[in-house]
Amino acid sequence: MTDRIPLQTMMDVFVRNLVNVGFEQDRALRCASIFADNSAVGVSSHGLNRFPEFIDFVRKGIVNPVAEMACLARFGAWEQWTGSLGPGPLNACDATTRALDLARRHGIGCVGLQQTNHWMRGGYYGWMAAEAGLAFMAWTNTKPNMPAWGAKDCHLGNNPLVLAVPRRNGPVVLDMAMSQFSFGRLETHLREGKPLSVVGGYAADGVLTTDPGAILNSNRALPIGCWKGAGLSMLLDSLAALVSGGDTTYHIGQRDPEYGVSQVFIAIDVARAERPSWVDGLMDEMVADLHASRPVAESGDVRYPGQRILAMRRESLEKGVPVDSDIWKQVLSGL
Amino acid sequence: MTDRIPLQTMMDVFVRNLVNVGFEQDRALRCASIFADNSAVGVSSHGLNRFPEFIDFVRKGIVNPVAEMACLARFGAWEQWTGSLGPGPLNACDATTRALDLARRHGIGCVGLQQTNHWMRGGYYGWMAAEAGLAFMAWTNTKPNMPAWGAKDCHLGNNPLVLAVPRRNGPVVLDMAMSQFSFGRLETHLREGKPLSVVGGYAADGVLTTDPGAILNSNRALPIGCWKGAGLSMLLDSLAALVSGGDTTYHIGQRDPEYGVSQVFIAIDVARAERPSWVDGLMDEMVADLHASRPVAESGDVRYPGQRILAMRRESLEKGVPVDSDIWKQVLSGL
Repeated sequence: MTDRIPLQTMMDVFVRNLVNVGFEQDRALRCASIFADNSAVGVSSHGLNRFPEFIDFVRKGIVNPVAEMACLARFGAWEQWTGSLGPGPLNACDATTRALDLARRHGIGCVGLQQTNHWMRGGYYGWMAAEAGLAFMAWTNTKPNMPAWGAKDCHLGNNPLVLAVPRRNGPVVLDMAMSQFSFGRLETHLREGKPLSVVGGYAADGVLTTDPGAILNSNRALPIGCWKGAGLSMLLDSLAALVSGGDTTYHIGQRDPEYGVSQVFIAIDVARAERPSWVDGLMDEMVADLHASRPVAESGDVRYPGQRILAMRRESLEKGVPVDSDIWKQVLSGL
Repeated sequence: MTDRIPLQTMMDVFVRNLVNVGFEQDRALRCASIFADNSAVGVSSHGLNRFPEFIDFVRKGIVNPVAEMACLARFGAWEQWTGSLGPGPLNACDATTRALDLARRHGIGCVGLQQTNHWMRGGYYGWMAAEAGLAFMAWTNTKPNMPAWGAKDCHLGNNPLVLAVPRRNGPVVLDMAMSQFSFGRLETHLREGKPLSVVGGYAADGVLTTDPGAILNSNRALPIGCWKGAGLSMLLDSLAALVSGGDTTYHIGQRDPEYGVSQVFIAIDVARAERPSWVDGLMDEMVADLHASRPVAESGDVRYPGQRILAMRRESLEKGVPVDSDIWKQVLSGL
């Protein structure tokens, strides 16, 4: 069953839980606002639904609620930081802010972040950057959860990638894992008893399937574009480790559960080179051209990445944030 | 029919053709070596097979053989250059060199290149960077040649993306278009009468197919990962235009044939942060772990991106570069 909860109520409940496990008030607020926004824009798999596990990780000492990221090395426009095994969302937020600062100073800025934790919804940081008027790329590695092309067992991460560009009428923000469906999406479909819209991995018999449960059981997710997404995953993983000086998916797979991942944040101050009106004009023209596509389905529409986010956030602010009632009750009663 | 031609012979014939259409000797040599290497590593679609069209473009004044790239703006670690509508491979080579220089100075370096032409095989520039010991990302936009997800007509480019990391025992270099198969690959399969290994686009009836001819006819290539590759294409296009100050796929589609594309070149001096031995160790470990995958086919192997390149180049040097005899005769007799 689903319900809608006022955003402020969700924030208050998140903050209370976070303070209970050792977060300072201001950091609890920042962290809560990221989880709440993720649910508000429809990504509850990395909002409310993931919150109980996050609190559990703090309780178990896997995520250190008071650890802050610290600079390890500066090379001009590129810096290496450690996340000190602190909260992934706060580290990612701070690394984004730092990359934006570096970009404002050097045109482009890059932060490699090692020993951090799951950033939840990567798109959040893309929106941060784009709303500040900068172009942005970021990615993270993960534990091994996807097979290489032609392989049965998982030696690659699904390594989500975020790309974002500013636009006054709504930034264009892509947030995608290298598997055809993120694990959050597979779990949501399984919970709702819905098949996937296209094949997303292999069943136990090695045949491609749209059954989310069969894919979760076989642990054989399909990389986007077959060998291409598998290759992209490996390159993003190596870059994340090399740029941050941190661990690869291979290292992360040596421990359980997943912690201490490596991430990259790159910002480019595009409005510095061109008038902001040029940037807006270019992006509006591109969006208009995309929308001029002839749709396959008569009633179909063609959308750009992130197009529905602003409307979903607005709806959540007006009507409340959509929640799974059972998970909400669990969080409400204290984790 | 295929044949093998000594690399030096191929170089000489390419140089003669290039000088005939107005290339200076040293630029003809550089350009010829890129086309020849592309064929030598098995990408003849962007080597010998593309050479006649390239010469035709120079003859028609679409590619200016004497134009050199010029700096438009400097923002520290990021610069904007124009390709002056010169030869795409030479511009891409020079932009890569410039990005490496900027990275050596600032840790990370970025060149946005506008008004350039087709770079042929993007992987060439990835190898350049990785062999110099730097990590590298580059991409180009193209004319509209791929439909958005849920669309029938082409409003997106297939926008090839290159990622490369250094490794003493062979760099890891990914070079991939956003369509499941590049047009070069579709044409090669069509010429050889071979079906594609997985579905690569739609036939005229809107059904997914492995028939390269049907896809070339319908002009509906499948983006990798469906909506994901389509989204990635749009973001790469916007970043290419914003970072270079140049044209988008939409603009490029307003003219025929394709020219004046936008490209991005980003290098990171990873060996500056860490000992080169650390970089090598990390990459060797990652490759070993990938190779430890359990293959689906009993006789199957699991490879990393670019794994076969070194062996193919060696074979071409020893036995000659593989060529399509008809195309070779055409180039040999003078274009």
